[in-house]
Amino acid sequence: MEHKKIYLAGPEVFLREAVEIADRKKAICAAHGLRGLFPLDAGLDLSGLEPQAAGLAIYEANIELIEAADACIANVTPFRGPSLDPGTAYEIGHLRGLGKPVFAYSNAAGDFAQRTRAFCGVGGERDGEGLLIEDFGLTDNLMIDGAVFQAGYGIEQQADDAGFAGLAAFEICVRRAAVVLGV
Amino acid sequence: MEHKKIYLAGPEVFLREAVEIADRKKAICAAHGLRGLFPLDAGLDLSGLEPQAAGLAIYEANIELIEAADACIANVTPFRGPSLDPGTAYEIGHLRGLGKPVFAYSNAAGDFAQRTRAFCGVGGERDGEGLLIEDFGLTDNLMIDGAVFQAGYGIEQQADDAGFAGLAAFEICVRRAAVVLGV
Repeated sequence: MEHKKIYLAGPEVFLREAVEIADRKKAICAAHGLRGLFPLDAGLDLSGLEPQAAGLAIYEANIELIEAADACIANVTPFRGPSLDPGTAYEIGHLRGLGKPVFAYSNAAGDFAQRTRAFCGVGGERDGEGLLIEDFGLTDNLMIDGAVFQAGYGIEQQADDAGFAGLAAFEICVRRAAVVLGV
Repeated sequence: MEHKKIYLAGPEVFLREAVEIADRKKAICAAHGLRGLFPLDAGLDLSGLEPQAAGLAIYEANIELIEAADACIANVTPFRGPSLDPGTAYEIGHLRGLGKPVFAYSNAAGDFAQRTRAFCGVGGERDGEGLLIEDFGLTDNLMIDGAVFQAGYGIEQQADDAGFAGLAAFEICVRRAAVVLGV
């Protein structure tokens, strides 16, 4: 029987050890009867492509994996600021538009409003540009928390010394995915 | 005949003048035979709700508008860092998952890699955390540019002194949406 497939969204693709982390994530998925799909899996040959064409080819390859997946586990650890990687935010949305469950984890503790205030260096309701600071006691922008909540769980949030590469909270999400997908 | 509906995604919801900007955007849409849907349109009564429940209610209301829309015009002007607002990134993804065309504009000039290097204070291929800096000559993370490209246009990028509130590039996107939707 073919295993249910989990799209492994997150900023690990930007780390030097991306392939090693992908292999570890896939091994954890396999141990729970699931198959992990990692964004680099397509093994695209980008040689000869102009940079913009190469970027768009990666988009297409990632969308193919997303369409093949049964669910997603997203790493929403804050990325260059108080929120998750924007590519991961996009992918969570695409999967929800397709009606697929999304599980997510953050390897950083802390409430979104507190993190945003610290990033902006302000204490009140708005940042220095007059933009409201979302304050709903959630983990990130409410569209992210809301999307993950649809699968029956909140974002699994644990401080992890390994930063983006930590996998303890990821494994909790794998267990949840196995339950929801009936594995 | 009912007008085609455009979901108006962007961080203007966080500005003090959110409602005024929404009205101006809707007027531009109407002038081109389209109807704008703004995230605050649901007029939710959040009184009596705990903060987290209020946040999730806003998520649900926004998803209803996204499901009702025929297309999206997203403001991807950089938000607290080198990339767009993560809620907008999510919404672009959700609309693409539903197969709806997404148009987008940025009121800031500049290539994504250059902007990211300036934000991180580095000059090379990676930031201080060892994360690769995407460098494909695109406007933002390739998932965002790729999603917008599916509608036949790139992200419309113009420096605008009005920042998030500027509407010149927005109007170009409205014209494009009218063409693609056959209005």
